[in-house]
Amino acid sequence: MGVLPALLSERLGVPQVTLLSEVSVEDGQVTGRRDGAAATEPPTALSTVGSSRVPFRGDHQPGITEPAQAHGHLLALDLAPGAGRKEAAALLRRWTRTAEALMAGETPASRLHDTGIALDAGPSSLTVTFGFGRTFFDRTGLAARRPSALAPLPPFSADELDAGRSDGDLWVQIGADDALVAFHALRALQREADGTARVRWQMNGFNRSPGATAAPRTARNLMGQVDGTNNPKETDEDFRQRVFVPAGGDPEWMAGGSYAVVRRIRMLLDDWERVPLEGQEKVIGRRKSDGAPLSGGSETTPVDLDKRGPDGNPAIAADAHVRVTAPASNGGAAMLRRSFSYHDGFRDDGAPDAGLLFVAWQADPMRGFVPVQRKLDRGDALSRFIRHEASALFAVPGGARKGEYVGQRLFEG
Amino acid sequence: MGVLPALLSERLGVPQVTLLSEVSVEDGQVTGRRDGAAATEPPTALSTVGSSRVPFRGDHQPGITEPAQAHGHLLALDLAPGAGRKEAAALLRRWTRTAEALMAGETPASRLHDTGIALDAGPSSLTVTFGFGRTFFDRTGLAARRPSALAPLPPFSADELDAGRSDGDLWVQIGADDALVAFHALRALQREADGTARVRWQMNGFNRSPGATAAPRTARNLMGQVDGTNNPKETDEDFRQRVFVPAGGDPEWMAGGSYAVVRRIRMLLDDWERVPLEGQEKVIGRRKSDGAPLSGGSETTPVDLDKRGPDGNPAIAADAHVRVTAPASNGGAAMLRRSFSYHDGFRDDGAPDAGLLFVAWQADPMRGFVPVQRKLDRGDALSRFIRHEASALFAVPGGARKGEYVGQRLFEG
Repeated sequence: MGVLPALLSERLGVPQVTLLSEVSVEDGQVTGRRDGAAATEPPTALSTVGSSRVPFRGDHQPGITEPAQAHGHLLALDLAPGAGRKEAAALLRRWTRTAEALMAGETPASRLHDTGIALDAGPSSLTVTFGFGRTFFDRTGLAARRPSALAPLPPFSADELDAGRSDGDLWVQIGADDALVAFHALRALQREADGTARVRWQMNGFNRSPGATAAPRTARNLMGQVDGTNNPKETDEDFRQRVFVPAGGDPEWMAGGSYAVVRRIRMLLDDWERVPLEGQEKVIGRRKSDGAPLSGGSETTPVDLDKRGPDGNPAIAADAHVRVTAPASNGGAAMLRRSFSYHDGFRDDGAPDAGLLFVAWQADPMRGFVPVQRKLDRGDALSRFIRHEASALFAVPGGARKGEYVGQRLFEG
Repeated sequence: MGVLPALLSERLGVPQVTLLSEVSVEDGQVTGRRDGAAATEPPTALSTVGSSRVPFRGDHQPGITEPAQAHGHLLALDLAPGAGRKEAAALLRRWTRTAEALMAGETPASRLHDTGIALDAGPSSLTVTFGFGRTFFDRTGLAARRPSALAPLPPFSADELDAGRSDGDLWVQIGADDALVAFHALRALQREADGTARVRWQMNGFNRSPGATAAPRTARNLMGQVDGTNNPKETDEDFRQRVFVPAGGDPEWMAGGSYAVVRRIRMLLDDWERVPLEGQEKVIGRRKSDGAPLSGGSETTPVDLDKRGPDGNPAIAADAHVRVTAPASNGGAAMLRRSFSYHDGFRDDGAPDAGLLFVAWQADPMRGFVPVQRKLDRGDALSRFIRHEASALFAVPGGARKGEYVGQRLFEG
């Protein structure tokens, strides 16, 4: 098998992902034996993309620590007039049942007949993640249980926010390595909401396809830049503490949960691409080819903010993106970024409508996104080339345990 | 290696696709040894998606007979004021050089620095295809060489065409199995057109990811229907005759070329999904689960239009899509459909903006798309669930031979 198992295990051996070791697809029902651990030899290498499956239940919701998939849908909904706590709880119950079936590659049992869009395909690493926005709590009489962490994000000078594409009562994040599997989930979940909640905004994103690079690599964004090198790693001692709300925290129903900051960040690609390579690298503070910091080394070499070049000037400019975002520059603030690129064609002004659906996960936005963004707002050389067009903050409760539905501890706690 | 090589060769052993048997990616330059035939054992199974490469040069342009990729961009441009035959020829020269390099996974040599978006990735089955619209010939003083096959398509009663997203002087079709590779090509080719042509419209589409199904399957569309079963096969005796303009045809510069009909077909998914499964199957004339015709058999069983059910009624309804499109119902007309699904979020009216970027290839639209569409227009049960929102027809010249640029026989013939 040569290098295959090693690479497979490197890519797929993350704890959350298991493989269906025997997959059979018939009339859209994917059935398979679940192994306790990642199988070392999938039934066929070509179906690895399809057969990879992420478990729905656990301490945390899926779609946070798993590698970002090739396709993503972000969906925000507002409760319909007349829908309150009871209707919302019933919706979360339906969504839980549907998401669990979809992530297993099964056709969901539902009052609705299935669209059939995902027939033939395996689970394709599908994840579905649910969150609550600030406004949700007033509309459901649950204001007393609203986390203080859901306070509105402060305005930033670089914001050009579109209210219609920001915020929302409810949030659904869908990711899958197959476009039809992702779209199938989007339709199924949206239809389950009929009569209870209406689409407020919806965005589509993408990442590199599994296997497009010779070995797993840090993602690139549409500026061509390696993006995510400094992300906290699951092996970091303080990873869980940074990303997840601890048990006994405030509010208690958020134990095991996380806060998602979502920003639609348009890239001014026409402007950016006119900047010569050296100028782009100075803006970021990293080499474009391999992501190595301009202070030397390779991609994973820690950035040396004190290093000076032969001319006596700092190797990493004072306003370089990598300096301003460095945890050392932000009192140790760090968040887990798990973003998707987006491209919605060209705008009326002829510029590409493209950029980053930035999704950042943290135990507390006031110690994650907010201080970093404040710093960026004041002195990031990258600001000239981006526009924040939409913004939202959601409380994403912990994972559903056996017999639970997502958010149950909020509704019934 | 078990079943791996057999499946690989089933999927990748089409004549146009070869594998780079040794791929090395460094600073965005992918270098590799090209084998004459498909390698039986790629360097790593996980990079098959990335390492697959389609040759640029040949009798026909790429992107016609190869399997449709996971990501597609369709781009139409109009010549800028003042740009004529000379400028257009120069653009095709630049585009040819760039497309050839991109499809080989190389960074194109260009007056522009590369965006770097595709760094790390292999060619990922990238194809780039160029075409000329009806209006191109007037604007370049080449009206005498305009193929008569480029006559405007007749209006169809189901059309709700948006002129701004229809037609165009120039057309570029991009497909790749990696989203960033596809976007990289889109930006590179668009930038090469700066000053010569401006974007008229641009659409993004997708198909199933390679490996999402346990074995290669006919594609499904966003209605959940198996779509493409009756496509002509390369092994059919009359395949080339149906799809490609023969040598000695009219005009001579189109030898080896083909005509592409492009239609943006929105699906009224909210309406469609309300129809029970049995009703949907009656509309199409095929079973949803496996695509088998309602006259019996499996997906590939020929449709029996005369078969009657136990109730004495035709098994395939008089207005079933599969009956109306059957070559037997259209004097043998057939075209090669190679479409992408699209999904651009939700419309202002709350309906999904989703459907099919229908791309059909034929030697002569008057014997391919037009008669079939006329028939559909009069009596296709599917019409109630779709809207044709944009339409275009392009002359796609033959492939560039060694030393040639695409379209050279038009400009210099």
